[in-house]
Amino acid sequence: MSFVEHPAFDRHVGGKMAVSSTVPLATREDLSLAYTPGVALVCEAIAEKPELVHKYTWVGHTVAVVTDGSAVLGLGNIGPKAALPVMEGKAILFKGFGGVDAVPICLDTQDTEEIIRIVKALAPGFGGINLEDISAPRCFEIEQRLIEELDIPVFHDDQHGTAVVVLAALKNAALVLERKLGDLKVVISGAGAAGVAVSKILLAAGIGDVVVADSRGIIHSGREDLTSVKAALAEVTNRGGLIGGIGDALDGADVLIGVSGGTIDEEFVSKMAPGAMVFALANPTPEVHPSVASRYAAIVATGRSDFPNQINNVLAFPGIFRGALDAGATRITEGMKLAAANAIAEVVAGELRPDAIVPSPLDPRVAPAVSAAVAAAAISEHVTR
Amino acid sequence: MSFVEHPAFDRHVGGKMAVSSTVPLATREDLSLAYTPGVALVCEAIAEKPELVHKYTWVGHTVAVVTDGSAVLGLGNIGPKAALPVMEGKAILFKGFGGVDAVPICLDTQDTEEIIRIVKALAPGFGGINLEDISAPRCFEIEQRLIEELDIPVFHDDQHGTAVVVLAALKNAALVLERKLGDLKVVISGAGAAGVAVSKILLAAGIGDVVVADSRGIIHSGREDLTSVKAALAEVTNRGGLIGGIGDALDGADVLIGVSGGTIDEEFVSKMAPGAMVFALANPTPEVHPSVASRYAAIVATGRSDFPNQINNVLAFPGIFRGALDAGATRITEGMKLAAANAIAEVVAGELRPDAIVPSPLDPRVAPAVSAAVAAAAISEHVTR
Repeated sequence: MSFVEHPAFDRHVGGKMAVSSTVPLATREDLSLAYTPGVALVCEAIAEKPELVHKYTWVGHTVAVVTDGSAVLGLGNIGPKAALPVMEGKAILFKGFGGVDAVPICLDTQDTEEIIRIVKALAPGFGGINLEDISAPRCFEIEQRLIEELDIPVFHDDQHGTAVVVLAALKNAALVLERKLGDLKVVISGAGAAGVAVSKILLAAGIGDVVVADSRGIIHSGREDLTSVKAALAEVTNRGGLIGGIGDALDGADVLIGVSGGTIDEEFVSKMAPGAMVFALANPTPEVHPSVASRYAAIVATGRSDFPNQINNVLAFPGIFRGALDAGATRITEGMKLAAANAIAEVVAGELRPDAIVPSPLDPRVAPAVSAAVAAAAISEHVTR
Repeated sequence: MSFVEHPAFDRHVGGKMAVSSTVPLATREDLSLAYTPGVALVCEAIAEKPELVHKYTWVGHTVAVVTDGSAVLGLGNIGPKAALPVMEGKAILFKGFGGVDAVPICLDTQDTEEIIRIVKALAPGFGGINLEDISAPRCFEIEQRLIEELDIPVFHDDQHGTAVVVLAALKNAALVLERKLGDLKVVISGAGAAGVAVSKILLAAGIGDVVVADSRGIIHSGREDLTSVKAALAEVTNRGGLIGGIGDALDGADVLIGVSGGTIDEEFVSKMAPGAMVFALANPTPEVHPSVASRYAAIVATGRSDFPNQINNVLAFPGIFRGALDAGATRITEGMKLAAANAIAEVVAGELRPDAIVPSPLDPRVAPAVSAAVAAAAISEHVTR
């Protein structure tokens, strides 16, 4: 295989992560404290007071990154083994940016009930569950059920990580263009995991009008082909009762958010309102190429690192889980997500430009700011242990 | 709780382990190689050739340490959260002695079929499965089924780790006392996980006569209260057809191996043959105190670090998994276990004394010797990928 000559393969030999001891193991006394007989006292203490597991084990700073390999990046259903490099990548980003210890868990099942049962069974050994690259609509039920049935944070990053960063970017884009969020007409192309979550957070943040389109066109309550999730979306979006295709939705729209993986014709983009904003987030190929989008839009963002305004989940998930774990949060609420978006946006509030509406993924100020905001929100909402 | 003043608690604050990245994350290029877009190439390669998961992910050096918390140390069924400090301890011993990255997995179920299903579902993300502190007789079926159904090494350490180190110790004890293994009459007190495995490995190593006793007395084929595992044991042990209690078994015996957690009367020990060997391995309280056992036995071993001749699984499991992973073994055979026992014994072959029949748990020569022997055995038995 000639493609193994790409430098990414060298970086992946042996994988990208390791485990280490944080206590010494040099003497018999070390062994007797970290292992038998000393460890037995700690076990007994936790058996008596289970919440001590957060203090005396790595649960207090550790999350599982759980996938079934059904929707990995733009590669689709490649299964659990092929998904592992992405989960390792996620895990080291958790550590590198949020100081969160994360363990990849790649499940050899794509059955919704089985995944729920397994994650519940694994939960005692982790402080949080980051669901990753699980296809829609199963991801919605899996996340919702786990949130209800577990007392640790459960967060599907493909939904909410994306949503949080999109909201942060949109807030700053509106500031740059001196627009009010409540006045914006937003079109979301894509009604998968990200599209649904982006729709919800934008409505929660007070966006005036949100229209969502899937591959069959605008989602409206007259359609009979909608899943229950899309039907629920139809109830709260598309205030104007639009019907038709993505082109009909974009006519006169202020914002396009592409989370579809497809492409959008230049002609449709050209009909957006003056001073439009285009977030074309499909990776690696944006729905509209930035050089095309910038002919019609005042602000353009993508998911790519080689264009300005990179909308990257790494701005959100490390700090969100760090804050949730630090606060002893039992769940991640809408308020905590909004707080995270505000914190991301505010990091660059003094430095805004049309080509700099979000911090760089490497900006070291982001995760601490997000973590502090999320922890404060958890405490003020009383969702802590 | 006053007992939290024990120094073991200080050592356990925040747990005992962490995850780290083994690749840099300092630049945008780093991110593009370790994560998107570069990672996608690696995912595609594994999707095409699944065995590449061993090369390009941490699977090649990583095992899951799986428990259901049903038989933790001598503490019994304390559940998954309270078991976690032991699993973390095991994980850092794996790393410290064998260079194996190990992840604690504490399951909130004690249903045999459910545990089997979950471990099978987790398997794509690990290079091996170390089962730990799962109570008998469920541990036997769980291990056997997983060995049959998975193509990575599965090893219940409470059975085989103990068995390997006991065999190593017995070989060296016999050398010190100039006895032949084939002539020894061995009594094993305890027919749980360790007792069954010790019996099997001793028979495989050519011990002449093995008699096993459980809490109801000597196991013989006339008993009608035997589980299937014990009934199978009755078929291959107790060549002399003994009946009665542990005292009857010990009368004239050469070796006592205590893996019961109970106590054994001094009177019974006093009736053993001259030049006896007593391995009283219950922790923290040996079946016979070493000071008592040494009145009658020429060699005494325990599981404790504060007496000579400590029989400690850490001599076995790190090297066994390291060797199995290095060789790409798909299972851990009886031959690999015997090779491990020989390697442990041989490390101190030139230094044998009655109070030094096994290496110290901290002896840095052990894991490399075990690893090399196990890998060689795997290759010669053709159980590698």
